[in-house]
Amino acid sequence: MSVVESVLGHQLFEQFDAFLFDADGVLWLGGKPINGAIDYLRYLVDKGKKVFIITNNSTKTIADYAAKCKKLGFDMIQPEQIISPAKVVAHLLSMHKSDLPVYLVGSAGLQRELMQEGIESFGVGPDPVQNYTNSDFIHEIDVSRPVRAVVVSYDVHINYVKIMKAINYIEQPGVKFIATNEDATFPGPNPKVRIPGAGTNVMAVQYPAGKEPVVIGKPARPIFDYICEKFGVVPERTIMIGDRCDTDIKFGRDHGMFTMLVGTGINSMDDVKQFERQNRPDLIPHYFTHSLKHLLDTM
Amino acid sequence: MSVVESVLGHQLFEQFDAFLFDADGVLWLGGKPINGAIDYLRYLVDKGKKVFIITNNSTKTIADYAAKCKKLGFDMIQPEQIISPAKVVAHLLSMHKSDLPVYLVGSAGLQRELMQEGIESFGVGPDPVQNYTNSDFIHEIDVSRPVRAVVVSYDVHINYVKIMKAINYIEQPGVKFIATNEDATFPGPNPKVRIPGAGTNVMAVQYPAGKEPVVIGKPARPIFDYICEKFGVVPERTIMIGDRCDTDIKFGRDHGMFTMLVGTGINSMDDVKQFERQNRPDLIPHYFTHSLKHLLDTM
Repeated sequence: MSVVESVLGHQLFEQFDAFLFDADGVLWLGGKPINGAIDYLRYLVDKGKKVFIITNNSTKTIADYAAKCKKLGFDMIQPEQIISPAKVVAHLLSMHKSDLPVYLVGSAGLQRELMQEGIESFGVGPDPVQNYTNSDFIHEIDVSRPVRAVVVSYDVHINYVKIMKAINYIEQPGVKFIATNEDATFPGPNPKVRIPGAGTNVMAVQYPAGKEPVVIGKPARPIFDYICEKFGVVPERTIMIGDRCDTDIKFGRDHGMFTMLVGTGINSMDDVKQFERQNRPDLIPHYFTHSLKHLLDTM
Repeated sequence: MSVVESVLGHQLFEQFDAFLFDADGVLWLGGKPINGAIDYLRYLVDKGKKVFIITNNSTKTIADYAAKCKKLGFDMIQPEQIISPAKVVAHLLSMHKSDLPVYLVGSAGLQRELMQEGIESFGVGPDPVQNYTNSDFIHEIDVSRPVRAVVVSYDVHINYVKIMKAINYIEQPGVKFIATNEDATFPGPNPKVRIPGAGTNVMAVQYPAGKEPVVIGKPARPIFDYICEKFGVVPERTIMIGDRCDTDIKFGRDHGMFTMLVGTGINSMDDVKQFERQNRPDLIPHYFTHSLKHLLDTM
């Protein structure tokens, strides 16, 4: 018998002012909205609740995300209700005035998000090893262009050159080392295929660098601080609703919020029971629901 | 005052039957022999001691290494006295008969070493991400060719495609996951440049795979077992001589051998004193010498 409570929609509605939703596996799967998600979010927004989408995916800009929301039917969500590590990295860097660019191991979307806060970056796209060596080794790498920070995120073009540039920049005095998030893998259209996530790149840089980055995304603190400061969210009156225990539930638990696992994505109650046996209270949600549709039906 | 003893050449000579040497920083630096190293090794061999070179560098074949030894003046060293993880991986795989190849994240030298034990492999060389996707994501990867193992080592061509292939192979039943070594960086001609080592690739695969490899090289056990079985080395009568505490000294300490740090490479006695303050007895050598020349002079 698990300690996790099933919960009805009206109980949540009364208990909380702010509802934070993970996206993939909660609101949509790939390109399709999950049954009930659109209507549940519309209900909460119409009744004056604070509603946010908190994603770790930093390959898109917030504008790209807002367009996706609109296209899928989540037209009640405004761009400022969507928060990603890309947004928070850009915000944090913009608070420290500097003309120096960022060396970015990341996507063009992350680069555009940084640019919207006036932060220049370089490094996006392929950087073929063949341009640097024909042998097994690169003994020198050009890190003469000054940078303010190294930002590591998801980057399909990760390779030896980028890792080597990143670690040699991180060695320079005053250069910050920032990671958008540490997700090991992410879900794709074929559930049997493992797809390396941003955390793969983060580990590939932090291990030879011998230094740990400031991590922004769930479950780390910076994205939580951002929400609190920007939107006056009160943790005790806030619930984080997600499909992954190691990011979403841990994020809520670590920062004093309530948490709910929804059974339409990665983790199930079987996983939760295993975390209970492993004595991992940080991974155990306060509540469980099979779907957002069930919550709506029990308002 | 450190617990580490300085030692004279004749003391070591009387106490030990077998002398294991790391190569870079102990016998040579880059392409040049370190003063006294050739003469000291020749003395030991001439007097009937067992002498081995134990390297973690698996980018060369043993034959390549033997040629390098001969060229630098270490002509008293025969190929069978040189042991690398490449050699031990090949040996371990050859003990389990299989017609299946290995998926290799490694160099052409490692591939040749495996081939000498009759083990086929594929994956060496560039595998450009552009052949798989024009977008930020690869959602499918071809791992239909059956393999017996994934071997991860130093590979300047490491990239997203190779990481993704490796983790999806590792998911398949019965596929072994082997790492030659976990060195984070290695020394190059410019001491200010950090060069990512094989461990970078190992971390980049093990993190999204969610599984740890069998590690072969120093300080792990398999390379020690190999020496004991193959050469009848007795740990209590053996000394490991190296310039790195986290590989060489830990290797000796973890497996019951005596250890000596030599001050011509990476770590100094200042580092050792820090390890003493950190209470890391596994990183503290039994003996210290400034150079092999000093040992020779005190025979």
